[in-house]
Amino acid sequence: MDQSIASRIEQLFPEMVERRRYLHQHPELSFHEVETPNYIASRLEELGIEVRRNVGGRGIVGTIRGGKPGKTVALRADFDALPIQDEKTVDYRSTVPGVMHACGHDGHTATLLAVAEVLVSQKEQLTGNVVLIHQHAEEVVPGGAREMIADGCLDGVDVIFGTHLWSTTTLGTIGTRVGPVMAAADKFELTLFGRGGHGAKPHETIDAVLLGATIVKELQSIVSRRLDPLQQAVLTIGTLHAGNTFNVIADRAQLTGTVRTFDETVAQKIVSEMERTIKGICDAAGATYTFHYETGYPAVINDLVETRFLEAVARDVIGDTSVFEIDPTMGGEDFAYYLKEVPGTFFFTGAGDASHYPHHHPRFDFEEPAMVDAAKILVEATLRYLATR
Amino acid sequence: MDQSIASRIEQLFPEMVERRRYLHQHPELSFHEVETPNYIASRLEELGIEVRRNVGGRGIVGTIRGGKPGKTVALRADFDALPIQDEKTVDYRSTVPGVMHACGHDGHTATLLAVAEVLVSQKEQLTGNVVLIHQHAEEVVPGGAREMIADGCLDGVDVIFGTHLWSTTTLGTIGTRVGPVMAAADKFELTLFGRGGHGAKPHETIDAVLLGATIVKELQSIVSRRLDPLQQAVLTIGTLHAGNTFNVIADRAQLTGTVRTFDETVAQKIVSEMERTIKGICDAAGATYTFHYETGYPAVINDLVETRFLEAVARDVIGDTSVFEIDPTMGGEDFAYYLKEVPGTFFFTGAGDASHYPHHHPRFDFEEPAMVDAAKILVEATLRYLATR
Amino acid sequence: MDQSIASRIEQLFPEMVERRRYLHQHPELSFHEVETPNYIASRLEELGIEVRRNVGGRGIVGTIRGGKPGKTVALRADFDALPIQDEKTVDYRSTVPGVMHACGHDGHTATLLAVAEVLVSQKEQLTGNVVLIHQHAEEVVPGGAREMIADGCLDGVDVIFGTHLWSTTTLGTIGTRVGPVMAAADKFELTLFGRGGHGAKPHETIDAVLLGATIVKELQSIVSRRLDPLQQAVLTIGTLHAGNTFNVIADRAQLTGTVRTFDETVAQKIVSEMERTIKGICDAAGATYTFHYETGYPAVINDLVETRFLEAVARDVIGDTSVFEIDPTMGGEDFAYYLKEVPGTFFFTGAGDASHYPHHHPRFDFEEPAMVDAAKILVEATLRYLATR
Amino acid sequence: MDQSIASRIEQLFPEMVERRRYLHQHPELSFHEVETPNYIASRLEELGIEVRRNVGGRGIVGTIRGGKPGKTVALRADFDALPIQDEKTVDYRSTVPGVMHACGHDGHTATLLAVAEVLVSQKEQLTGNVVLIHQHAEEVVPGGAREMIADGCLDGVDVIFGTHLWSTTTLGTIGTRVGPVMAAADKFELTLFGRGGHGAKPHETIDAVLLGATIVKELQSIVSRRLDPLQQAVLTIGTLHAGNTFNVIADRAQLTGTVRTFDETVAQKIVSEMERTIKGICDAAGATYTFHYETGYPAVINDLVETRFLEAVARDVIGDTSVFEIDPTMGGEDFAYYLKEVPGTFFFTGAGDASHYPHHHPRFDFEEPAMVDAAKILVEATLRYLATR
Repeated sequence: MDQSIASRIEQLFPEMVERRRYLHQHPELSFHEVETPNYIASRLEELGIEVRRNVGGRGIVGTIRGGKPGKTVALRADFDALPIQDEKTVDYRSTVPGVMHACGHDGHTATLLAVAEVLVSQKEQLTGNVVLIHQHAEEVVPGGAREMIADGCLDGVDVIFGTHLWSTTTLGTIGTRVGPVMAAADKFELTLFGRGGHGAKPHETIDAVLLGATIVKELQSIVSRRLDPLQQAVLTIGTLHAGNTFNVIADRAQLTGTVRTFDETVAQKIVSEMERTIKGICDAAGATYTFHYETGYPAVINDLVETRFLEAVARDVIGDTSVFEIDPTMGGEDFAYYLKEVPGTFFFTGAGDASHYPHHHPRFDFEEPAMVDAAKILVEATLRYLATR
Repeated sequence: MDQSIASRIEQLFPEMVERRRYLHQHPELSFHEVETPNYIASRLEELGIEVRRNVGGRGIVGTIRGGKPGKTVALRADFDALPIQDEKTVDYRSTVPGVMHACGHDGHTATLLAVAEVLVSQKEQLTGNVVLIHQHAEEVVPGGAREMIADGCLDGVDVIFGTHLWSTTTLGTIGTRVGPVMAAADKFELTLFGRGGHGAKPHETIDAVLLGATIVKELQSIVSRRLDPLQQAVLTIGTLHAGNTFNVIADRAQLTGTVRTFDETVAQKIVSEMERTIKGICDAAGATYTFHYETGYPAVINDLVETRFLEAVARDVIGDTSVFEIDPTMGGEDFAYYLKEVPGTFFFTGAGDASHYPHHHPRFDFEEPAMVDAAKILVEATLRYLATR
Repeated sequence: MDQSIASRIEQLFPEMVERRRYLHQHPELSFHEVETPNYIASRLEELGIEVRRNVGGRGIVGTIRGGKPGKTVALRADFDALPIQDEKTVDYRSTVPGVMHACGHDGHTATLLAVAEVLVSQKEQLTGNVVLIHQHAEEVVPGGAREMIADGCLDGVDVIFGTHLWSTTTLGTIGTRVGPVMAAADKFELTLFGRGGHGAKPHETIDAVLLGATIVKELQSIVSRRLDPLQQAVLTIGTLHAGNTFNVIADRAQLTGTVRTFDETVAQKIVSEMERTIKGICDAAGATYTFHYETGYPAVINDLVETRFLEAVARDVIGDTSVFEIDPTMGGEDFAYYLKEVPGTFFFTGAGDASHYPHHHPRFDFEEPAMVDAAKILVEATLRYLATR
Repeated sequence: MDQSIASRIEQLFPEMVERRRYLHQHPELSFHEVETPNYIASRLEELGIEVRRNVGGRGIVGTIRGGKPGKTVALRADFDALPIQDEKTVDYRSTVPGVMHACGHDGHTATLLAVAEVLVSQKEQLTGNVVLIHQHAEEVVPGGAREMIADGCLDGVDVIFGTHLWSTTTLGTIGTRVGPVMAAADKFELTLFGRGGHGAKPHETIDAVLLGATIVKELQSIVSRRLDPLQQAVLTIGTLHAGNTFNVIADRAQLTGTVRTFDETVAQKIVSEMERTIKGICDAAGATYTFHYETGYPAVINDLVETRFLEAVARDVIGDTSVFEIDPTMGGEDFAYYLKEVPGTFFFTGAGDASHYPHHHPRFDFEEPAMVDAAKILVEATLRYLATR
């Protein structure tokens, strides 16, 4: 990349750190963000960027219109925090009891603000536009992305890039892959209603412990036999609770679980097979049930061309040997919704190493120089995309 | 019992042996008996007993009307043989290839003919009547008993007694019990229709091996949880066959089995639970099935009063220490039908010991003196019943 | 029975009521009885009966030595109460918070004291002796019976009789049966240790929900296939609890349940089959477990001769049409231990009707005239037994 | 590609057809090939190519040494036929009863002979060498590839290319993919030994029907819970047979099945999990077993660089829009062994369309012009590889 631009980003590092730490001290929960979007919007306005507030509720969209007509690149950073008590001892630890930036969204925000500063300085030379999407509420389904899209944040956008700083991946590396990169994560709750009774009189009851066990066993066949083995899926029953006393037959069983997939049709197949299995087993037992299946974020599916493009950018910016193909992970991300609307890619920026606390841990932190790596890649991807497409 | 009558029966032993061996050499299959009923009827007529032929098809009923009015006692002996090749070397072995008296019905017949001879000699003193039921086709469902009853063989009968010579029970003993003495034995056939396919593409199939396995597992719960634990029942799946090749998913599974019970409502509960279970599991899998349940003979349920009466008779005749309470057995007997119509009891007359070949074995035989024991008990039971009721 | 004795018992009814109500107001928990045994012992001593205190801990044994040598009859009544808050409004309700005679043991005690009074008055005419066993701690395993037997309460005893007043059986009737009358009731606790983990990474875990379900399913085969179908047994898993969160794979599962049998060898077979099944399934999964099986009271098995004797007594005392054969019940009773040592029988004395509150209910009560029925049968059984054996 | 070379290949089409049809009429079974390798070797020698016979048993290796030193490219074609009766009516149908080229190996051979003819004509200009691997016994495990490799056929080889003509893929297209392209296909046989017995006495038996069903159910958990969900695998139980008669409990169950994977460690995990599961379940039942697991060919894993290279060649030769990424298939191929030794790729050459008979069908045939496509790609890949590496 252009060396002067790279240098400019490096010079912004102290500012990124300052902004990130400020946000870290003032975290706000998903769908309750007030000061954070104000902070972002004010900064973008300081930079002379056109800002739209309350996009899709609490999102901020900044638009940089280039000097020449061309494509429009969107860059996205999320800014919500988590209901976790910060247990770190650093002086920039959270000041809000029970709330913490334990996933790095503070870093995402500081990075995108630096990117904005650099890109707005290149405004006249840009052959096209840049849309800066500062998104609220990534952590809580249904998430902010869907609302912001419905409110027009992707209007006119040709491509979107996003990244996640990752504390357990080596600083100085970039991970990505074509295709599924993060799974769709759904949730279900199943209550089975049998008929309780005396532990010595099973024939007068419909034994909910046995019924629950049967359901758990039969659901195994969905992954083992009813899905295309080339597809990938997990069906986990996380909890099964039935019965109060050793000598009384339980009248109900409660099960909860999660389904992870990389393809919507696979998830749909699982749901319909679950319904058919549960109904059949309950009919066989003379029992009834309630089944609630809650669809979470879809899978994040990186596009081929945009991912190869981003990989090339990353190799130039970070170095040939520092860009890796990663396995898909089973976590969820509502970046998925953007990729269902426009082409793009989502990548991971190494921000620590394997010994770091994982995301969502009360002592989570990340290596701040990762923000420089991320910023460089986002800036260079934007410039190169607009220059060449 | 009256000593002169006991002696008379003992004197008839050679004749019983002769008749029994003649029948043993000339066995006839169930529902194909011709010469045997002729032989019986002729003998009864020789004795001056009123005979009705072709009762319920092939049965013979002899009636001895006593000199004084009173109750009517029925005594029953079955006379059909089995499709088994006689492998004995004795000179009275079967002369019919592939057919053999391998269950002792020849002995039952010879015994009842001797009983007839003794009772007809007491005719004038009898306070009541005796009905001699020589029954065809006990070995093959639906059996001869039902037909003979429909044809009036129990008309006017107050009580019925019957016995089975038993080769593996010690000669000189009598076994009986109140309540269930032989089980109802039903049969079922189940065919499961899945959808076959390539061994590597389970999602395009409905795996009949897995479906068959699921059915087998789920049917276990019927005995373990859906029946009154105070009831007794067996549900055995004797065969399960599915699939032709290791790498092709099977399109169907075939299962057969048997259900044993001592109470009709238990059998009915099992059938309805089987149907519900099979339907539910097949629905859950998207499969279909055919289920055939064939009811066999009901359980033989001995009445309390008549059994205690018979036990008392047996103790007097055979000796106090030779009458035992037995466990119920799981074999079937269409004597059950008589007991559904009139009070009575069915007992086992020891005719060998544990080292003897079991019933239905190609080398089956029994100790012939057992016929004397059986005859004495049947005669004494008849005389005492008519004298005291 | 002798009419004067019957009258004497009827005259004692007010006294029985008074004693029973006094005890009802002053209940004591199992293994904590102090005043109750004192009360009983004092009364027996007042009657001039030889008393041994603290038998097997807290039991009282009174002995009436008859004027002539003969057999020895034992009569047993239990006297402990339950940890239940009395919710009745009658003036004789419990005065001890949280403790209540909710099973009728107060009535048993009052009845046996009246029996003692009558029998001691016949002392000189008795051909043999009477042992009055007032037992503590019937409600809590391991019970008082075992301790009292070990301490000699059955020494020299030839036969034992006992009864339970039953609030939901019609007053004026007696229920009994030969053979098993109350089940052995055991308890088990099973903890399965898998390995927890991320809901999307089952391969890194040993899923305790699945493991628990498998165990529940496999335990079904014990009753359905591994026990003699002529035997009776229940294996109930009353509770199954595993997992805390829908998207985390559970690391352990906890199961509790009960086993009911009428034959010790059946219970032993069940335990060994459970152990083998649990071990095999855990081995298959790479999991571990702890399994605690706690043996409760054995089954109460009524002897044939003594039960028929008692039935005859009851028919004479209460009336021919008021004595019924009952089904065995699945509750436990440590009367079982006495019957393992000496012949005897345990019967139920109707003390209410189907509309009465069941035993162990906070509003449990019984019809007090039942005590007269019970006392008459116990007295007459004792007199007749000593007179005729 | 060079137009004159392309034309030369097209001119060889009639000769390819002639050779292919000759081989089609004279098929030889795997490991029994005699005339086919002779035919190939003679032809190569006619072309002046250095030939080694009986390589690894029955294989033929031809070597073309280029005029200039460089890399060595191997090309492989298999030449065995199948034990299938040819049901086609064409005049070039098989002349050997029960043996048929039903998989296109005749076409592979004719194609590689034409490729040899073209390449040998370019010999002097070649910067490197070409190894022509004519392999026997691809259809029958353990296959000829392993033997030929052990006998040195890959010595000095830098890269290998191979293709399969495919009758149900559209003529004029090429299918390929990076990574797994054909699965490892293993086979297993499991015999479970229970203890047979009377259908009414399950407690005296170890029910092999139930045991077989349990094994089938428990094996489902391997794919559903014990494998990394990002991995792909199939475990199919193709057959389950147990029991002879409806009322006799089966003494043994026989199961066979197949395991398909794309990664050896996954297959190994499956085997070890199967063993642990089977052992645990049999221990739980008190049963024994024999388990035979037969490893088939490993998965064919195409290398990234060589596959992308081959795709580029194919696009040039066949046309940009005719080269497709395919899904992996579950069939096996011992080309896998070559790719475990040297880099390379295996691709599919369309030779029909969806309406054609599939491979291994008695009426299988393919569109012969596909040989021209395959030959052009193999020649161009060789020339370009040697010219540029």
